[in-house]
Amino acid sequence: MEKAEAERKVEESVEEDDQVVNPWQVSAKDGGKIDYDKLIDKFGCQRLQQSLVDRVQRLTSRPPHVFLRRGVFFAHRDFEEILNVYERGEKFYLYTGRGPSSEALHLGHLVPFMFTKYLQDAFKVPLVIQLTDDEKCMWKNLSVEECQRLARENAKDIIACGFDISKTFIFSDFDYVGGAFYKNMVKVAKCVTYNKVVGIFGFTGEDHIGKVSFPPVQAVPSFPSSFPHLFSGKDDLRCLIPCAIDQDPYFRMTRDVAPRLGYHKPALIESSFFPAMQGETGKMSASDPNSAIYVTDSAKDIKNKINKYAFSGGQDSIEKHRLYGANLEVDIPIKYLNFFLEDDAELEHITKEYGAGRMLTGEVKQRLIQVLTEIVERHRRARAAVTDEMVDAFMAVRPLPNMFD
Amino acid sequence: MEKAEAERKVEESVEEDDQVVNPWQVSAKDGGKIDYDKLIDKFGCQRLQQSLVDRVQRLTSRPPHVFLRRGVFFAHRDFEEILNVYERGEKFYLYTGRGPSSEALHLGHLVPFMFTKYLQDAFKVPLVIQLTDDEKCMWKNLSVEECQRLARENAKDIIACGFDISKTFIFSDFDYVGGAFYKNMVKVAKCVTYNKVVGIFGFTGEDHIGKVSFPPVQAVPSFPSSFPHLFSGKDDLRCLIPCAIDQDPYFRMTRDVAPRLGYHKPALIESSFFPAMQGETGKMSASDPNSAIYVTDSAKDIKNKINKYAFSGGQDSIEKHRLYGANLEVDIPIKYLNFFLEDDAELEHITKEYGAGRMLTGEVKQRLIQVLTEIVERHRRARAAVTDEMVDAFMAVRPLPNMFD
Repeated sequence: MEKAEAERKVEESVEEDDQVVNPWQVSAKDGGKIDYDKLIDKFGCQRLQQSLVDRVQRLTSRPPHVFLRRGVFFAHRDFEEILNVYERGEKFYLYTGRGPSSEALHLGHLVPFMFTKYLQDAFKVPLVIQLTDDEKCMWKNLSVEECQRLARENAKDIIACGFDISKTFIFSDFDYVGGAFYKNMVKVAKCVTYNKVVGIFGFTGEDHIGKVSFPPVQAVPSFPSSFPHLFSGKDDLRCLIPCAIDQDPYFRMTRDVAPRLGYHKPALIESSFFPAMQGETGKMSASDPNSAIYVTDSAKDIKNKINKYAFSGGQDSIEKHRLYGANLEVDIPIKYLNFFLEDDAELEHITKEYGAGRMLTGEVKQRLIQVLTEIVERHRRARAAVTDEMVDAFMAVRPLPNMFD
Repeated sequence: MEKAEAERKVEESVEEDDQVVNPWQVSAKDGGKIDYDKLIDKFGCQRLQQSLVDRVQRLTSRPPHVFLRRGVFFAHRDFEEILNVYERGEKFYLYTGRGPSSEALHLGHLVPFMFTKYLQDAFKVPLVIQLTDDEKCMWKNLSVEECQRLARENAKDIIACGFDISKTFIFSDFDYVGGAFYKNMVKVAKCVTYNKVVGIFGFTGEDHIGKVSFPPVQAVPSFPSSFPHLFSGKDDLRCLIPCAIDQDPYFRMTRDVAPRLGYHKPALIESSFFPAMQGETGKMSASDPNSAIYVTDSAKDIKNKINKYAFSGGQDSIEKHRLYGANLEVDIPIKYLNFFLEDDAELEHITKEYGAGRMLTGEVKQRLIQVLTEIVERHRRARAAVTDEMVDAFMAVRPLPNMFD
């Protein structure tokens, strides 16, 4: 039963159905959309039912985050059990992370952090954030020093999302790997054969052994004993991981191994991908700056990019648009508003009017430009206020005495 | 040229000539002796010429260690360059280690440490000693805690060999992996493909990824930057590794990688294997206590083991022995005396008399029992004097301000 979870789901990177989703590649069939239902089936996770969203609202006494209400976080593993634990009056901890391979984050990068910030506030729980500078050094062939610099720069963007310093520990692998964390890495590595990581991640013999060695590094923050300065004596603490669904392979592996080590399996709550400006065919490309809105973009950049590049589902002519309405299935402005326009009533209104052809693409884009400019401006102000001392403070290996308050 | 070194020598664990020598297995053809000449050819290291031994004597102004004089350390890589460096008035550092998989060490385990102690004294250089508790946890399926306990116990035996605390840093991987050391591990891992470690170490797809991940851990103590508390600002410091020749695969890999990282290749000085009591067919077996003399054996144990189990090259009857003499090629008492009887003249005398049949096996064994009992007694006294505080002191991460004095 334990073993079945990953075994049944191996080979997901094999392109049997032309849809590839793994931590390094997300691509749909013939440039089409990712089929998330298929992905859930293949990975063996669960769809996040409305009943769970309702339960979150009840337990936290606050409206569920827009990413929950609108199905951005759409899949899970054992999230229900986390809610059971919480309802019994116990706590859990959150674990998320980022691979620091670029200087500037785009809006898609912020999605898991915005959601994690909401979870931290709503459940009042501690959070560990892993910056996998070691991974990026190995995959992107960047120098150790450059990856560590990017990790600190990215930490500033993460801190700018508003995490509670009394409940949050941010760490870089290059800094933190060692001690209890390394011991857990070795314990995990003992339980995973090379054939298994090939099945899960699709490595080949020509891949370097750093790639083969890395999965335990991303696995072990799932176990409280990897953080003795935080969770000493709390080996039974449950872990919930908010992440994009491309990270699922790491945690499928982790969940297979956990019981053999006497550890709880981490729970997961998984998001779909934030679509590229040019259309919903996967994740955004760092090599094309016009494929995404960056948190460093100026108001003018945002306006230009949205107007010029955001793929529109509107019709070719005003006449046809008034007649047929916009194709909302492929329309990027509506999709972006779905992520970032908080007002449900307004979103419903725009969707209805635009779909019926009564609103034009230009008008919808206009509203999106306002919404994104505000978010990016707010982020820029928050990030500018993050000092090096604050980064040091978040990244200090220290106890968090009030993390469960 | 750089790549050639390991590539040319891969597949040494393939039993093409029925002789298998790798870090986990040493076995000769049909239970015969290891062919060290073949091994040198296959591994691509050099035979240690008498001229180098003479040069060591000249440079250090002391007689070469018995293990050098008698060819126990018989092969090398770039040892001549280390002597060049030393002759120019520069220093180097020594690196050796042990996999702590058992409580009690046998005499074979002491060989590299006795020799390393001599090198430290003769060249007045610092030394790092790696205890690969992580490796043993993964290979022997021992618990993390048990391996750490064994590492400390073994550290006591190592300290008992007389290392200079002002020049020696002993570390356990579980304690020390992290920081600069981990950064070097990642740098090495990036340069080595899975196919390459399969070629060098013979791993299969069913081996766990811990095995695949480990070679960089043993590689990086070869680089001074892995020890910033010792060698900060001394990135050009050369490294000499005294070890048994079964460890050569790790350092062949290390030497291939080093130039790509801008590091010096470590030099090596390599020993043959200390033979088992039952005959020179490889290394001793931990599962058979009568195959070796342990440093915990009593005088009575030693006497019984030597008399009962030490394979004799003497003839079946006294008459035949007087006539034909002992077969010194297979005689274990003579081989053990070759390691541990320091007096060259006496050894020559015994060898001559025994080979001519004028000395009997019993007499030679008698002398061996004296020699080994003395060594083991001396070791036992020295080990009993090693306190936990001394272990802590040797293993403390600290600068060694007088390490080059």
